[in-house]
Amino acid sequence: MQVGILYGISISTGDPELITLKGLRLLRTADIVAFPAGLNGKPGVAEQIIAPWLIEPQQRLPLQFPYVRDLKVLNQAWEEAAAKVWSYLEQNQTIAFACEGDISFYSTFTYLAQTLQAKHPEAIVKTVPGICSPMAAASVLGIPLTVREQRLAILPALYNVAELEKTLAWADVVVLMKVSSVYDQVWPILAKYKLLDRSWIVERATLPTQKIYDNLQDCPQLDLSYFSILIVQVNSSGSQQPTKN
Amino acid sequence: MQVGILYGISISTGDPELITLKGLRLLRTADIVAFPAGLNGKPGVAEQIIAPWLIEPQQRLPLQFPYVRDLKVLNQAWEEAAAKVWSYLEQNQTIAFACEGDISFYSTFTYLAQTLQAKHPEAIVKTVPGICSPMAAASVLGIPLTVREQRLAILPALYNVAELEKTLAWADVVVLMKVSSVYDQVWPILAKYKLLDRSWIVERATLPTQKIYDNLQDCPQLDLSYFSILIVQVNSSGSQQPTKN
Repeated sequence: MQVGILYGISISTGDPELITLKGLRLLRTADIVAFPAGLNGKPGVAEQIIAPWLIEPQQRLPLQFPYVRDLKVLNQAWEEAAAKVWSYLEQNQTIAFACEGDISFYSTFTYLAQTLQAKHPEAIVKTVPGICSPMAAASVLGIPLTVREQRLAILPALYNVAELEKTLAWADVVVLMKVSSVYDQVWPILAKYKLLDRSWIVERATLPTQKIYDNLQDCPQLDLSYFSILIVQVNSSGSQQPTKN
Repeated sequence: MQVGILYGISISTGDPELITLKGLRLLRTADIVAFPAGLNGKPGVAEQIIAPWLIEPQQRLPLQFPYVRDLKVLNQAWEEAAAKVWSYLEQNQTIAFACEGDISFYSTFTYLAQTLQAKHPEAIVKTVPGICSPMAAASVLGIPLTVREQRLAILPALYNVAELEKTLAWADVVVLMKVSSVYDQVWPILAKYKLLDRSWIVERATLPTQKIYDNLQDCPQLDLSYFSILIVQVNSSGSQQPTKN
């Protein structure tokens, strides 16, 4: 039996023009274009980004990925999504899954692909790399993310404040993804280490609603959206000598 | 006086099809296309990647960036390159600088742009983000780089072995850029922590000469090229609890 391929395609962080030629080619030649369903019946962000590129007869497949942390709920959603995807793959149809940001970097696609391959080891999954949100944020800020021998630390979530202090001690550049829910705890730490003027926040990088905060001095509190990234240049030279163990 | 814009364009890690639409548009409409000159008169990697995309009348501007660590030599090279670039910008010509990998991520372009702006504050510099090598490596390996709450550490160079042990203790995923020169010191550490079967190396990701090592068990020594990346999945679940400070 010949089965179709599931492509995970990085489609940009926001600007539709930031898709790769390869991503665009596979998106437009796929039989079915899948993406995370939007909330409350509205189109999701990925769906909006790829809208200019889709060709009329292409079938759209919105997949439900609830915004919860309950692993049981998530697992069930991934299984349902994988079953839907498989129902097309086993008919030898090609699916392009549109993913905001890079496909290998904290992507919902990973869970879908892993669930699919656990159930159907014969499934063929391929990915197309793309723009990663910290790099998009650095680009719109007009700063380098890393230079020379700077150590980079990326934290997708923060457990506690002690962890941030430990990371600031270790790394030359620190990126906090999804900083919105912990920002009021992060600000005093940045103040304590005199890093407020070496910190930037970008909300929704490269989307039309993008917002930049390039001085956090007067911003102990911010009402940030879910897709907000904080970049801290702890040590700009990157020539810090490691502490001896 | 109207001056031209210097665009720093991420052109892919190797596969020409991994350039973004925006990058391609700016590359093809620029008056001048700049790139790091190759060694010994041969075309450099960036020049080879963009070759299929260039339009005949576009002027090529190879710039010399020596592969040395001597800051004095480097500074002089950056100043010479910046002076060449400025000589076109001040004539209101647009320059697209082609950069392998992402433009904000350990990029030679940063030094060129900073040197230019220090000398000519009126210079206008813009960047286009693109594929970053660790994400390209994960994609060709068919693995996620990061999932859930995994902490990611990226080291561009290694000072000593103690530093690697410290990083392995802190992070869930570790990326070592340019691992070739330190690989014989890295391997015993990975062996000690039983991480050899959770480590991958990709040489020249997405280039036709790409090479993958997905089991390091039998490879205490490897003759790797300069653009080799090591990915270590220290803790695949990412649910590691932080140590208390």
